[in-house]
Amino acid sequence: MSDTRQQRIRVAIAGAKGRMGREFVKTVLGTEDLELAGAIDRTLSGVDVGEVIGIGATGTSFTTDLERLIAEQSPDVLVDLTTPQVVKEHAELAIRYGTRPVIGTTGITLDDVKTWDRACRQREIGGLIAPNFAIGAILMMQFAKQAAKYLPHVEIIEMHHDKKLDAPSGTAQKTAEMIAEVRESFRQGHPDEEERLRGARGAELDGIRIHSVRLPGYVAHQEVLFGSTGQALSIRHDSFSRESFMPGIVLACRKVMTYTGMVYGLENLLQ
Amino acid sequence: MSDTRQQRIRVAIAGAKGRMGREFVKTVLGTEDLELAGAIDRTLSGVDVGEVIGIGATGTSFTTDLERLIAEQSPDVLVDLTTPQVVKEHAELAIRYGTRPVIGTTGITLDDVKTWDRACRQREIGGLIAPNFAIGAILMMQFAKQAAKYLPHVEIIEMHHDKKLDAPSGTAQKTAEMIAEVRESFRQGHPDEEERLRGARGAELDGIRIHSVRLPGYVAHQEVLFGSTGQALSIRHDSFSRESFMPGIVLACRKVMTYTGMVYGLENLLQ
Amino acid sequence: MSDTRQQRIRVAIAGAKGRMGREFVKTVLGTEDLELAGAIDRTLSGVDVGEVIGIGATGTSFTTDLERLIAEQSPDVLVDLTTPQVVKEHAELAIRYGTRPVIGTTGITLDDVKTWDRACRQREIGGLIAPNFAIGAILMMQFAKQAAKYLPHVEIIEMHHDKKLDAPSGTAQKTAEMIAEVRESFRQGHPDEEERLRGARGAELDGIRIHSVRLPGYVAHQEVLFGSTGQALSIRHDSFSRESFMPGIVLACRKVMTYTGMVYGLENLLQ
Amino acid sequence: MSDTRQQRIRVAIAGAKGRMGREFVKTVLGTEDLELAGAIDRTLSGVDVGEVIGIGATGTSFTTDLERLIAEQSPDVLVDLTTPQVVKEHAELAIRYGTRPVIGTTGITLDDVKTWDRACRQREIGGLIAPNFAIGAILMMQFAKQAAKYLPHVEIIEMHHDKKLDAPSGTAQKTAEMIAEVRESFRQGHPDEEERLRGARGAELDGIRIHSVRLPGYVAHQEVLFGSTGQALSIRHDSFSRESFMPGIVLACRKVMTYTGMVYGLENLLQ
Repeated sequence: MSDTRQQRIRVAIAGAKGRMGREFVKTVLGTEDLELAGAIDRTLSGVDVGEVIGIGATGTSFTTDLERLIAEQSPDVLVDLTTPQVVKEHAELAIRYGTRPVIGTTGITLDDVKTWDRACRQREIGGLIAPNFAIGAILMMQFAKQAAKYLPHVEIIEMHHDKKLDAPSGTAQKTAEMIAEVRESFRQGHPDEEERLRGARGAELDGIRIHSVRLPGYVAHQEVLFGSTGQALSIRHDSFSRESFMPGIVLACRKVMTYTGMVYGLENLLQ
Repeated sequence: MSDTRQQRIRVAIAGAKGRMGREFVKTVLGTEDLELAGAIDRTLSGVDVGEVIGIGATGTSFTTDLERLIAEQSPDVLVDLTTPQVVKEHAELAIRYGTRPVIGTTGITLDDVKTWDRACRQREIGGLIAPNFAIGAILMMQFAKQAAKYLPHVEIIEMHHDKKLDAPSGTAQKTAEMIAEVRESFRQGHPDEEERLRGARGAELDGIRIHSVRLPGYVAHQEVLFGSTGQALSIRHDSFSRESFMPGIVLACRKVMTYTGMVYGLENLLQ
Repeated sequence: MSDTRQQRIRVAIAGAKGRMGREFVKTVLGTEDLELAGAIDRTLSGVDVGEVIGIGATGTSFTTDLERLIAEQSPDVLVDLTTPQVVKEHAELAIRYGTRPVIGTTGITLDDVKTWDRACRQREIGGLIAPNFAIGAILMMQFAKQAAKYLPHVEIIEMHHDKKLDAPSGTAQKTAEMIAEVRESFRQGHPDEEERLRGARGAELDGIRIHSVRLPGYVAHQEVLFGSTGQALSIRHDSFSRESFMPGIVLACRKVMTYTGMVYGLENLLQ
Repeated sequence: MSDTRQQRIRVAIAGAKGRMGREFVKTVLGTEDLELAGAIDRTLSGVDVGEVIGIGATGTSFTTDLERLIAEQSPDVLVDLTTPQVVKEHAELAIRYGTRPVIGTTGITLDDVKTWDRACRQREIGGLIAPNFAIGAILMMQFAKQAAKYLPHVEIIEMHHDKKLDAPSGTAQKTAEMIAEVRESFRQGHPDEEERLRGARGAELDGIRIHSVRLPGYVAHQEVLFGSTGQALSIRHDSFSRESFMPGIVLACRKVMTYTGMVYGLENLLQ
C-alpha cells in the first residue's frame, strides 16, 4: 500500500470542463492513488480548474494545448471525455508520447482500435476504449449472458426519463445481442399468443422481447428477467447520476498501467 | 366476537368440484365464522365432498339439485364458481329463496346486474358479482387510480406465464381504463421519441403505455409505475396461486350479510 | 385556462439561497401559473436571484427584509424553506399581512399549529405546514394505511445512502405508525421463529417489522410489503433527488388559495 | 438429435412417492432424453407409479428393493430424493453397480464426499451432491460473488412465507459467506450510524447486512443489493414452487454422464 502512495498515477483529463469532465476532476482529487496532471479544454486556458468547477483553487490550470501538456508533464494516463471529432487526434498524440489513453467516447471504428492497438504495443503501453463506464451496467450485461445459457427464456425492461428520444436504449439492445450469442434463437411466448393492443409484447430482437418505459423522474434503469419452471431470476441496474461512471474510469486508470495493447470494453478488465 | 361464533354464515358452493371450488371448500372448512351448507356439482351426487377433494370425510355430500339444496338448507350465501352458462339460473334461484349470491364468473351483462339488484332489494338481501377476487389486485387498481390524479405519468407492466394467449391482460387493461377516468388524456414520452425496434414502447391505451411480459415460471404479476420530477412511485401485485382469491371470497361472504342490493366489483366492499 | 394565466399566484420564497430554495426558484420561474414575487435570504441583498443560482438575470433581487417585501409586494403565498429558528417569526408576519404561509420546516409544535390556525381563520386565508413534500412518499404512506385494513401482514424495507446516521428512517417509522392505527396489534411471523443471527428479522414497531438498508449510491427509497394467502402487494417510493419535493410545493401553493385555516400535512390536500 | 433419442438416459428415482419425487417422475416422463428406469419407495411395491401420482398408468411400478432394481435394470443414474438416514446406503449401492448417484439430500459430510469420490473414480463414473437444485438460486449466488469484487458494498434481503422458523435463510447465509471470500471484511454503513429501533440494520455476517422478511403468501425469494457511487445493482431470485428444482435435476442427470468423480454443488456443473 505504501508503494502506491509513493507512485501515484498521474492523470490528464481532456474535456475537463464538460459535465463528465468536471465530475472526474473531483474524483481524481478525491482518490488517493490518482494525481491530476493536467486539464485540457477546447477554449479555456490559464484558469485554475477548481475555480471553474466551483471547488476552490487546485494548483492545476486549464490548457488548450494537449501536445505541450503531454510533452512537458508526461502523464501516465490521458482520460479523454471529449467528442468523436477530436478523440482520434488525442489518442494518437497520447500514444506517440507513451501516455496511456482511456477513452470514453462512442463512435470509434474497429480500424481505429486495430491501429491504436499496434501503436500501443509498439510503445509497450496499455489503452482502453469503453462505451460504458458504469461497472454495474457491465456486470448486469455479463451476468445476463451467463444466465441465458441455463435460463434461455428472457425479456428486458429498460426505464429512462422521458427526454430520451430512442427506444430501446443502446444498453438494452447490446444486452439482447450478448444473450443472442449464447442461446439458440427461438420465438418466446405462446406460439398462438395475440396482441389485443398492438405493441403490448414489446420489440423483438432475435426472439428476445424488449420493453421501453419512459417516465419523468426516472434516470437510467434496466432489468433483465429470466423465467423457468417454478422460478424467476432478475438482474437490475439503476444509474442514479453521472457519478455512476466514476468508479469505472478510476478502475480503468489503474488497470491500464498493468497491460500492453488497446482493450475495447471495460468488461475485459473485470475478472 | 362470541356472537359471530354462535351465528356462523352458512355457505353453499356451486362449482365445488372445480379447481377454484375445491380450494374454497377447504377455505370454508378452515374459517371459523363460515359453515359449509352444501356443495353443488353438475354431475356428482351423494359422495362426500371431502373424499373427492382429498381431505377426508366432511359430512357434506355433493348434490346436483341446487333448488332442493337451497329450499331445504336455506343457506345464507351461495358462492357461485361455475360458468356464464348456468350462473344466471343459479343467481335468480338463490335470490328467489332469499339466499345471497356471491358470483365469481365473468360475462355478466349490465342488464343482469340491474335485474338482480331489483330482485335483491325486493327480498332485502345483498349480492355481489366480482370479476376479480384477489384483494391485492383490487387495491393495486384503486391505488393506481388515486395516484394518477397527482402523478399523471404512468406505465403498466404485467407479467404472466407463457401459456397466456392474450396481451395485455384484462387486469392491465382495466387498470389503464380506471386511470383514464381521472386524468386528462395525453400522449406520454417525448413528442419526438422514436422506436428503433417496433413495439419497444408497448401498447397504448388513452396515452398510457402497457407492456406484457410472458415467461415460464411466472404466475400473474402487475406493476404500475408512476414518475414525476425526481421521484417514482410503483405499486405491484403478485398472484402466486389460485389461493389468492380465497380471502376476497371470504370477505364477500361476510360483507354481503350487511347490505341490501346487488354490488358489482369487490372494490366497492373495501373502504 | 386564460383566467389562470391572468391571475398568476404570486409567490415569495424565504430561504431562497439554500439548496431547496434554489430549486424552488427555478420551479416557480418554470411554472406557468406561478410568479416570483420576492426572494429572502438571511444575508444577501440587492443581487439578482438568477445570477446567484446560475440561471441568468430574473429581474427579482434578494432581500433580507421580509416584512418590507410582504408589505410592498403583498405576495399571495410565502414559501418558507428556512429553519425552525426563524420560521415562527416568518409565519406570524406573513399571516398578519394576509400572505398564506407554506412551510416546509420540521420542528413545528402542535401549539404553533393551533395559534396559526386561529390567525389564518381571522384573516380568512389558508396555510400549510408539511414535513414531507414528496407527493409519491405521501401517497405511499396513505396507500399502506388503506391496504393494511385488508392485508394486515406487512413489513417495511427502507433504503438510503450510507451517510444516513439514523435507522429506521422517519418515513418508515411514520408509515408503521399510520398502519398501526388501522390494524389490531399482533406479532407477525411464526410464533416459534428464531434468529440464528441477531437482528435478521429487523426492528419491530407494534408488531410491524422494519428493515433499513444503507448503501452508497442509493438516495431515499422505501418499499411496503404486504403478504396474504397466495399473493403479495407492494408499494414503493423512490426519491432520486431533491427536485422530488417541487411538485408538492407547487400543489401546496395552488391549494392554499382555496381554503381557510392552517392545514398540517400535505396528505390533507390530496383527495 | 436422433442419437440422443436412441440413447436416452435411464433414470431410477429413490423417494419417488414424496412431494419432490412425484414432481420429478412427471418431469422425467416429459423430458425427451430421459427415461424412467425405476421408482423406489420405502413401503409401496407393485403398484404403477402413474396411478399413485395421478397421471395414469406409466408401465413402471414402485419397488422397495433398490438393489434388485439396480442389478436388473442397470439405470444410468439414480436420483435420490430421500432422507439423510438412507441416502448413504443408496449412494454406495449405486456406485458399486456403476449407477451414477445424483443426490438432493442435505446432511452429507465431507468424509462421505471423499469416500464416494474415490469410489466413483474407481468405477469411472460421475456423481453429484447438491443441497440446492434451483439453477436460478445458484446463478444468483455466483453473480453476487462476482459482483462483490467490484462493488463491495452489499446487503441481502430474503423473503419467505411466515411458516419458516429460522432467520436468516440458509441461502442468504451461504450467499454472504461466498461474498466474504472475495472482498475484504469491512463494516458497512456510516461509522456513527445508530439504531433508533433495535434490529433495524439487520443481522451481520462479516460486515454484510442480512434482512429476513416473513409474510404469508410469499414462497422463497432473495435479493442481493449492491450500491456504489451513483448506481445500484441488484440480483433477485424468486422460487414460486418446488417445480423450480426440476430443471436443475435434469441438468445434473445429463452432466453426470460426462465426467468422472463425485462433484459437490450444482454450481460446478454450470459454466
